[in-house]
Order: sequence, then structure tokens, then C-alpha cells
Amino acid sequence: MSGSSFGKLFRITTWGESHGPGIGVVIDGCPAGLALSEAHIQKFLDRRKPGQSKYTTKRNEADSVEILSGVFEGKTTGTPISLLVRNQDQRSRDYGNIAELFRPGHADYPFTEKYGIRDYRGGGRSSGRETIGRVAAGAVASLILNELGISVRAYTKSIGPFTVSQEDYRFSEIEENSLYMPSNAVAEQAGEYISSLMAERDSCGGIIECIADHLPVGLGEPVFDKLDALLAQAVMSVGAVKGVEIGDGFQAPLSTGSKNNDPFRAENGRIYKESNHAGGTLGGMSDGSRLVLRAAVKPTSSIARTQHTVNTSGENTDITVLGRHDPVIVPRAVVVVESMTAVTLVDLLLQNMTARMEYLKKIY
Amino acid sequence: MSGSSFGKLFRITTWGESHGPGIGVVIDGCPAGLALSEAHIQKFLDRRKPGQSKYTTKRNEADSVEILSGVFEGKTTGTPISLLVRNQDQRSRDYGNIAELFRPGHADYPFTEKYGIRDYRGGGRSSGRETIGRVAAGAVASLILNELGISVRAYTKSIGPFTVSQEDYRFSEIEENSLYMPSNAVAEQAGEYISSLMAERDSCGGIIECIADHLPVGLGEPVFDKLDALLAQAVMSVGAVKGVEIGDGFQAPLSTGSKNNDPFRAENGRIYKESNHAGGTLGGMSDGSRLVLRAAVKPTSSIARTQHTVNTSGENTDITVLGRHDPVIVPRAVVVVESMTAVTLVDLLLQNMTARMEYLKKIY
Amino acid sequence: MSGSSFGKLFRITTWGESHGPGIGVVIDGCPAGLALSEAHIQKFLDRRKPGQSKYTTKRNEADSVEILSGVFEGKTTGTPISLLVRNQDQRSRDYGNIAELFRPGHADYPFTEKYGIRDYRGGGRSSGRETIGRVAAGAVASLILNELGISVRAYTKSIGPFTVSQEDYRFSEIEENSLYMPSNAVAEQAGEYISSLMAERDSCGGIIECIADHLPVGLGEPVFDKLDALLAQAVMSVGAVKGVEIGDGFQAPLSTGSKNNDPFRAENGRIYKESNHAGGTLGGMSDGSRLVLRAAVKPTSSIARTQHTVNTSGENTDITVLGRHDPVIVPRAVVVVESMTAVTLVDLLLQNMTARMEYLKKIY
Amino acid sequence: MSGSSFGKLFRITTWGESHGPGIGVVIDGCPAGLALSEAHIQKFLDRRKPGQSKYTTKRNEADSVEILSGVFEGKTTGTPISLLVRNQDQRSRDYGNIAELFRPGHADYPFTEKYGIRDYRGGGRSSGRETIGRVAAGAVASLILNELGISVRAYTKSIGPFTVSQEDYRFSEIEENSLYMPSNAVAEQAGEYISSLMAERDSCGGIIECIADHLPVGLGEPVFDKLDALLAQAVMSVGAVKGVEIGDGFQAPLSTGSKNNDPFRAENGRIYKESNHAGGTLGGMSDGSRLVLRAAVKPTSSIARTQHTVNTSGENTDITVLGRHDPVIVPRAVVVVESMTAVTLVDLLLQNMTARMEYLKKIY
Repeated sequence: MSGSSFGKLFRITTWGESHGPGIGVVIDGCPAGLALSEAHIQKFLDRRKPGQSKYTTKRNEADSVEILSGVFEGKTTGTPISLLVRNQDQRSRDYGNIAELFRPGHADYPFTEKYGIRDYRGGGRSSGRETIGRVAAGAVASLILNELGISVRAYTKSIGPFTVSQEDYRFSEIEENSLYMPSNAVAEQAGEYISSLMAERDSCGGIIECIADHLPVGLGEPVFDKLDALLAQAVMSVGAVKGVEIGDGFQAPLSTGSKNNDPFRAENGRIYKESNHAGGTLGGMSDGSRLVLRAAVKPTSSIARTQHTVNTSGENTDITVLGRHDPVIVPRAVVVVESMTAVTLVDLLLQNMTARMEYLKKIY
Repeated sequence: MSGSSFGKLFRITTWGESHGPGIGVVIDGCPAGLALSEAHIQKFLDRRKPGQSKYTTKRNEADSVEILSGVFEGKTTGTPISLLVRNQDQRSRDYGNIAELFRPGHADYPFTEKYGIRDYRGGGRSSGRETIGRVAAGAVASLILNELGISVRAYTKSIGPFTVSQEDYRFSEIEENSLYMPSNAVAEQAGEYISSLMAERDSCGGIIECIADHLPVGLGEPVFDKLDALLAQAVMSVGAVKGVEIGDGFQAPLSTGSKNNDPFRAENGRIYKESNHAGGTLGGMSDGSRLVLRAAVKPTSSIARTQHTVNTSGENTDITVLGRHDPVIVPRAVVVVESMTAVTLVDLLLQNMTARMEYLKKIY
Repeated sequence: MSGSSFGKLFRITTWGESHGPGIGVVIDGCPAGLALSEAHIQKFLDRRKPGQSKYTTKRNEADSVEILSGVFEGKTTGTPISLLVRNQDQRSRDYGNIAELFRPGHADYPFTEKYGIRDYRGGGRSSGRETIGRVAAGAVASLILNELGISVRAYTKSIGPFTVSQEDYRFSEIEENSLYMPSNAVAEQAGEYISSLMAERDSCGGIIECIADHLPVGLGEPVFDKLDALLAQAVMSVGAVKGVEIGDGFQAPLSTGSKNNDPFRAENGRIYKESNHAGGTLGGMSDGSRLVLRAAVKPTSSIARTQHTVNTSGENTDITVLGRHDPVIVPRAVVVVESMTAVTLVDLLLQNMTARMEYLKKIY
Repeated sequence: MSGSSFGKLFRITTWGESHGPGIGVVIDGCPAGLALSEAHIQKFLDRRKPGQSKYTTKRNEADSVEILSGVFEGKTTGTPISLLVRNQDQRSRDYGNIAELFRPGHADYPFTEKYGIRDYRGGGRSSGRETIGRVAAGAVASLILNELGISVRAYTKSIGPFTVSQEDYRFSEIEENSLYMPSNAVAEQAGEYISSLMAERDSCGGIIECIADHLPVGLGEPVFDKLDALLAQAVMSVGAVKGVEIGDGFQAPLSTGSKNNDPFRAENGRIYKESNHAGGTLGGMSDGSRLVLRAAVKPTSSIARTQHTVNTSGENTDITVLGRHDPVIVPRAVVVVESMTAVTLVDLLLQNMTARMEYLKKIY
């Protein structure tokens, strides 16, 4: 009953409800000597902020982050970094409807069964705002990765049926469309699809892809804390994610060993793989190729259509979820997946530092 | 660097190499008073034993389990349960080839880079025999689930392109074919496919599905230790698994909110969902519907064809993996996925016992 | 490198520096349905506040706590409880002296060697203000204990050479003297001793005793997470504590088995011990008798006398620690020891709920 | 309910009952490349073996260790090291008396209350034989320390009232007397004392001291995982230990700040302390001085005298504990305390490797 922490050495603990006083995260185990500012974290938070395009909720939140500890004279000190984002949208409002009804697709029902009490305001702890802590931590993790020359990047691979094929990727276009797709052309089609769903008070999902380059070989701890296993936990723990795959993922079963195996080659003393069906992991450890993971995001559960449901007294009734909701959360979840990937990688980078006796002798 | 444990309260720690003295697991945190015998565990282990059909390796291992601790007069005592399976196939053999080459698709290369040393005999720690500890623990977990009326069952959904559609499931046929598919007809087709690949010294993969029924509502700990997140880690940590999905998984993004949301209904005081696209989890907690997860298993990496690779000196060369290997590991991995699911569920059942003050008052 | 968390199920994570923006704690795993208010936590915090007697520093801090999450309509919801205390004493000040010198008895030197950087203002993370998070968490833990009829109470057993013998305990007097001793008479003598040391710019230590009554039998997890072992960690982790003992502790080696063993007796179906040399634990589990632990607190390290030291350049020099410091921290540490005891007990109460299969059947 | 593991990165999990098939430990997280043999571990185990002097039980156990995994060609591979010691003394015997009575001073009563079932044979999991796993792990940890030039040594400081003063220490004599005291003269007196107690069917306790030299400065993780806090847990978790202190420990409260503070000095660029009242820790981190800890061991609970007790039906009765028992367990516990210290130090050495960004850059 203490599932709000992730990571073993770079350990993040998130807290906060949608309409409580604030949301935050404590990062324990960040190495000392890292340059860190609120401005850097804010850049990450701004990527998930609402109200940035016509496809996102209009809720107006500044989501300004405050560093409460762990940084001195612009550098991390090795002590826990506490980050706070105050909620602004706490105005008194009539939640009566949501208080007594279980919204389909939401956590309301199991949450109530589990705890016997529920902060129903805006979804409480199960709100998308919970990801603020993840993204703030991801911002810190990404700085560490940068220092080591490792890059992590997430983007929208598909919205509903509109997919960007790998051969059509134009990474430079990701920031040019509000869906964060590596193809403005596909993004435009997807945008029209979303608009048509909005007109029907409906919603859609999509697939987020995240890649990481320049990882050292051997990240990931056999047996249970494999790189791909921890990434699966990290990304599946994001609300609305229903599947995670690495490399060819669910296509791999359709291949054969002779095609799916990535042959090794060496050139100028550097070992590489001739292909990358594996998506950068072998035996649960990074293999030197690009890490490739994908997350399947379900359609937004909050829709303005009337749906069947039951109330907290166990009676059948209907519900119409009011308010403005994202018709698709994929674009805003891109930075969340990138953050969880970054956090996982940093934790495994730290863990891997104790793999060999010779490493101990380098430090001591 | 200590990734061999899984679970917080029902905590399993596996150990052992393919050709070392033995393989085993320590289960710490098993509640006292559970009837447990070696015979029960053996039944689970026999399901993953090699040599049971023409599609599995001929390695002849009895894989007999010994209970070393934690059981007294046929019942668990609450102390750690140590389980040991001796390796029999330790005969001296020429491993020279594997010792100096990195097998494509295997952990050889990253393992060597990570640790600087590698027990190359039969894959060492990265061998499929590592799953013996998982399955032994799964056998114990399944007994606990049985006592609570919860059932878990895994089976082969597809082999290469041969898939059993949900509407064609015949659960009674699972034990009737050596591929553990819920359709003898599809299993026959799949068997021919495997035979044709064997003739070509090639291999294939497949998809394993696992279902759990009669779970209490509310299992899973927000935020990072969600039911689906921990299942994703648990299952992705199994060698050869490249993807995990819950419910509609990677199909969910193609749906819309109005179709994908599962409406609630109540009947005779019982709340249920009219559909189960979610696969039994909402907000990362069990929702009372059937839990449905799928794992994508890649084609067996060990194939008898000659492949490109490099040697441990970093030179280009070719490799032909000798010995008899499973052309498809899916059937033997079925019980592994079932075991990891059972272990995860038991751990979350224990964790959930502290969710409410009123539960404390029931016990104290 | 992530040592700011304590507890497995009732898990607290503290953060904050003496002169940063604030200090706080996140409590993850508090059962839902507990009545909790800021006023209750404030009462605990007020017990450790400075400026309450002539023996404590005059630093004027309100130390007002704010509940940022995890409580809804006056009850805990099962989600993480984030507690924040803003630092008020952040005024710009000349710390130059402390910045470049290592204070004897303080963490300055090892902290600098460990992290290469140090927030020197007021001791940074190693300040006594770090205990604010512990006490806030202890306040919540004590509420849970109260609900179960368990009481925990700490007090000052000795100040320097002035000790209250067990046969002289007057618990009603604890709140009547500013040293929290169970004897006003001894407290008066101790007070004079402290005054004389203050006149000499010196300081002293003491012994804190903590007792807990009405614990269920069997709390504590063999082998490493024994009740006494976790209490030892919990209490030794408090700054300035140099020793921890249970029951007769360091006197036990002077006894013999025939005297030190506590014989069992039964009366009206209740089992009890005829004596309690063990201090309430047998085999690392609570035994139904009163839990008795003692912590040895060293003399305050900050003294106004000139002492030898070295500076951060490794040169010999002298230091005179300026500012007003507690001549003895024992009275203010009483509530810290009580809090750490309460937190440990709650964590073990939660863990113990999964000890038996029959408990699972009570909940499910 | 899973308290059989200790350590975060160098993580040991012990298992086994006194009269079950065997006792063992799994060490997960041992760095790869360490030379390790059964012979080295055996040397440690032999130090705790029974039957080595007239003061120890005559139980004849070879206690031979077998390495089951994690070592290849004489070196650790980074995978879990599983160590097994078979119990030989499993002969059928009449335990009826112990089965139905709670031995004073033993874990029988709380164990039964906790789990509802108890392996009463020889104390089961609460037997002193449980320490075999600790000592086997300590043997491995000590090898790592040796490689880094760190030494750990434990010895008997006092038996009953017979104490060796620090100024009389003769370390060369430790191995010369069967009590492991650093003074043959005091050991002789203590031996007579033990003999007299044996004649009276009584037992005694003592104090074990453990020192560690050449630790790097800065080991220990603020706030809860401080070096002294984790040592306190590690050592207090050993059966029969009732108190732990660091440096001056329980004498510190009797001193004053001006005497108890250890002034810093520098010589030839090396910083040291002019005294070591602190016992080698400041702020919970190693400070470069000798680490000094002491453990108070209670008198052996098993005595041949008749004592009051109750039976499992809750009735008053008497008990006479049969069999041959150590009149004092201190000498055999010396290596256990040394082992737990070594394990704790290695874990903190590994944790400390991630303290600074510059360390990451040294490895990656």
C-alpha cells in the first residue's frame, strides 16, 4: 500500500490530487553536482500543460514549479529534491454528480472499493495531473542523461488509425504540429479525425514511441529488473496506457528466428547489430543499438456522451461527464512517456555502476 | 545490481545458472498455514520441462524440486521457503565455440560488457532454465489464490500467424494439444508450421494469453505499483517476451471512447461491466471483470543456421548454434507467464490488506 | 544514495534543509479512513519547537504544517500524505565562517567528502530541523496506534549524570518540567547542571526512554526486520544518538540466564511474563509486555568555545560556533524518538497483517 | 512479512531452520570479478561452529558450505550467489516437551502467536543456526573489503563482569583464547566465571566490540540509512543482542560537548580527528577515524534449571530445557557481528558510488 515510489537508487515519490492544494514529487538519490534550475523543469512541465492547442482541455493552469530542497547555489547537493506545483483550479464547484457516480473508463469504482473513500474532485489522485510529478522528475533525469551524452525522445506515432511509418519519420517536424507527430502531413489528417470525433462528443487514442540513443551496453539488471521489464512497468503505470512493446514487439511473433535475430558485426573495434528488431535490448540489457519502445494509449475516457453507469448506492443510472476534456491525451502524454523512460534509464545507470569489482576500484 | 527479487511482501528471489550445480528460489513472506508439498510444486515444474513433445528440446532433466525450509508438517510456517532443483545435465562438454562468440538474439554480448565475465555454459544465468525458480514460486502463489477462490490460467493464443480468435476458444482443448492452444484445430495448423520451420533450421514465436477470474475489486497500488504495471514488469522480465498488453491493448488506440469505455451495470447488488475492453483493470486496479493480459514472444534465438556474429575479440565471424533447441518456446513459456501472474497477484493481495483502517481493526 | 525513506508499507520520505524554502515529509501507505487534521500534527511539531524554555535555542519559527495531499473531508484517502513546513528563518546572513570550516562533532566534513558540495547554511540537511518531517509522520502514526489502543510515550531519563531511577518515575510530572523528566526533583537538579554548563559555554547529553503499551504479540519480522532491529535503526538514525538498547540492554550481560529470563505465567487465559528484563521483545517480536527502549544522546556539538578544526582547504585553524544553540537537545529530541518509535510500530503492524492465511480470509 | 533480506545493493536473503534439510543464503548484487571459493567461506563458518571449546555446545555439525551459483572459474559473475549448508543433526528425537511449552527467553511464544504454527525442533527459524547464512554472506563481504584495503575485526570485550579495558587490548591474543578476548589474562578469569555458572546450570552474556579501519570518508546515506543506523539494525537483528552503541555510546551522555567533540587536525594534507569519541561516524557517515561499535549480548536463555512457564494451552507449568547448550554464546557470536558489519559496509560502499555526478563520468 505504498505504490507512489519508483526506482531503487534514483527514487521518485509522487503525491497530490487534482483539486487539492498541490502536486509534487520528491527525488531521492540524485547525484550531487548537477546543475539544476526551476526553468529547466518548467520547460518539461510546459510540454504537458493543458490549453496549448485546440485538442487539449482549456483548464488554465500555470503549473509553476518550485524547488523546495536539494539544490544549493544552482547545483544538486545529493539530498532529496522536493518539487512543488500548486494547483490553481481549486475553485468551489458542484461535483455532486461525479461524487455519486462511477465514470466508465475511470478509476472511480475500484478506488472506492479499495479505500472506502474517494476524493472525487477532478479524479483526485487518478487525475492526469498526477503526471506532473513524473514529468518534473523526468526533467531532472534528462539532465543527467544529457551529461552522459544520452538522448531520449518521445513522439506520437499514431492517432487512431493514422500512423507515421518509420520510413516516413521526419523528426524535425515533431515540434511543428500540435500532435507531436514526426510528419506534419499525417498530423493534419489525424487532426481532422480528432475534430470529427469532437463533433460527435467522442474521443480517440494513439501510440507513443520513445527512442533513446547512445546508451552504454549492459544497462538493466537480470532477472526481474531488466531494462525492458522496468520500462514496461514505468510506462504501463501511466494512466490510459494499455500496452507496451520493445522493438518489433507484437510483430515479432510473426517473424522467424532467422529474420528476427539481429546479426552482430564489428567495424573499427566497435560492435554493432546489422538490424534492430530487438529494439535495443538483449537479455533485458541494453545492447548498444537504439532503444525503441511503444505505448498504446486508449481513447480518452471522459466523453460528453451519455453512458450507462451505476451510482455509489449500486443503482443503475446514466452519466454525462461535464466539463472540457481532451479528445485525445496522446500529445500531452508524450512527455510523460519520455520522462518515465528517462527516470528508468537513470536508475539503471546508477545501479550498473556497481556491476564490477574494477568499478569499485575506480571510485575508491 | 540486485535484480533477482520480485514482489514487496510475497517476495521471490531466484538464483542459478543453466549448467551450475542447481537452480532455485527463496520465497519470503508466504503467509503461514498454507498446505504445501513438493508434489504440488513438481506439477508446475513438469509443465515447463523439456522433452515433452516433438517441439521441445530433448534435454533430459528430471527437474525434481526439494523444499529446503519454511514448511513444517505439511504447512508453511511463515518463514522463507527455499526451493532447490539440482541440474543434472552438467556433463563436461566442449563449449569453446560459445565461449568466444556472441550468439545473435542472446544476452551473451551485453552480459559480457556488463560484468566482464560470463558463464557461457548453456547461457548461464540467461538460460531458459532460469524460469524454474519463477515457476516453483508460481506454484506456491497459485495455492494461495486457490484458497481465495481466484483462478489464473494461461495458454497459447497464437503461434506465428496462427491465432485462435476469442470466439473460437475451447478451454477444454488446451491440455489436449502439445502447444496448449484453446483449439486443437488451430494447434494442428500451427504444428505443421513449426515442423516446416524445423526443416529449414528456423524458429518462430507466438502470443501467450493469461486470464484471472474472481479477483476482488481494488487490487493494485496507485501510482507506480498498479496491477497492470507490475504485471507488465513481471511478464516482460521473462526472456523472449517483447510486448505486454492488457485487455484490448494495442487495438485500443484504434477504437473510440464511446466504444472502448465499458459501461457499468448493477444486478442484484452486484456491480459489473457490460463489456471488458479494459481487460479487468481501471486506474491500475482490478475492476471485478476478468483480467486479460497477453505477452508477445519472439522466435527462438537459437537456430541451427549459420549467422553473422563477432567474437569476444571483436572480430567478424560466423556462428552455427549447435545442440537441439526448441523451435518455439511458447508452449513451455505458458506456465511461466501464468506463474509470474500468480506471484504478482498474491503480492498485491497482501499489499491490499492494509488499504483501510477498518481492515486493521479486523485483524487487531 | 536514496536514504531518505523509512518503512516498508507505512513509508515516510523526508526532505528539506535548515535554511532552504521548507522542510517536509511524504507518507505513503497510510490506511484510508483515518481522521487527520493539521491541528493534530501541529501539536506534535510544537513539542519539538525551539524557544520553549531557557534551555532551547531562541530561533523563532512558527513551524506551521500544511497538509498538501492525501486527506479529503478530514479523512485519509489512502493516497500519499504530503506535509510541508515553510522555513521562516531564511534571512540573508554571513555564513562565511561555517562555509569554510568543518565544525567538530558535526557532519560538515564527511558530507563535503561524500558529495563534493554542501549547503552549509545552518547545517543544511544535517540540521536538527530535519526531524520536522519525522515528527510530522510520527503524529500520523500515533493516531493509528491510538485507534488500536496502543500508547507510545517518550521522556527524558537522564541529563548528564542526573538520572531518574525507574522506581522513582512519576509520569504525571513529565509535562510539568521543561526537560520532560518523570521527576520534577531530578529535573530541577539537571536544570542547574545545564545552567552551569551554559555559563561555561559547554553542553551536555542525556538518555531518552520510550515505552509502548498494549502491543499485540508477534510484531516484528524475523530475521532482519525484527522489532528491536528496526527500532534500533529508526532511533539511531536520529542525529546525536550514539546508542540504543532494549530492556536491560547493556546491563543484561552482567546478569545470568536464570535471572535475566522472564518466566511466563498465565492468569485467566492471559499469558504474561513475571518480569520484563527483555523490554518487551523475544526473538525480535513483541511479547505482550511493555516495550522499553533507550537512546543515548551525545552532548550538543555546537558550543561557543573555541575549538581546533581544519578548513575546507585542509589547513589547521580554530573555530568558534556563533549563534544561540541548545545546551542540551535531549528535551526536544524526546518527541523525535517517540515519533520514530510510532512510525516503526505502525509499519510492523501493517506488515504483520499478512502473517497468516486465516488473516487473508478475514479480509477477502 | 518478508524480513529475511538485508541490504539494498549487496542484498542478502537468508533461509532455513535448525532441524530442516539445510540453511543458506542468497547474495544478490555481489560485483563481478571477485575471486571466491568455498574454502574461504568455510573459514568464516568454522569460526562459529559448535564444539570448538568446553564453553560451546557439543552438537557435531560439519557445516560444510556449497556454492550453488554465481561463481564461474573461481570468480563471481555478478549473478546471485546461492550458498547451502546441509543440516546433519536431523535425527528423529523426542521434541514433545518443547513442542508444547514456551521456553523463557526464547521466541517460542511470540512466534506461535504471530504465525499460529511453529517448527519447534531446535528453535526452528529462531535457532542460532540461522546465523550461518549471515556468516557465509559476511565471508563474501569481507573479501570485497579486503580488496579495497578495509579491515573489520570483532572480538569479545567482556564476559559477564570481566571486561578488557581499551588500554589493555592485546589484539594478538584474540586467537589465543577460546573466548576471543584481546587479553588472555582476562579471558582466563572469564573462563572460570563461566565454569562456575555451568556448575550452577546457569549462563552469562557479554559485550562484543567490532572495529573497522581504512574506511573511505562519507559512507552512509542520510537520513535513515546512516552508517550507524544500518549497523544498529544489522547487529541488533542478531539473536540475543539487546543493545548497540557507537564510539562512547552510553557513556557519551555523561560527557560534555567540549570533551566529547573530536577536534579536526590536518597533517601533510590528511585530515584526522584528535580523538575518537564519535567512534568513526559524524552525521551518520564515516569520518575517517576507526569505526567502533559494541553489541550487548544477553545471557544464554537455554539453561538446565527448572523455570516457570506456560504451555501452548495457556496453562502454568514448569520447564527444564534439556540438551547441551552454550553457557555463553558471545564467543560464537563474534564472527556474526563481524559478518553483519562487513555486509553493511559493503552495501554502503556500493550505494556511495552514485553520490556524485563526477563518479558517473568515471564509469561511463
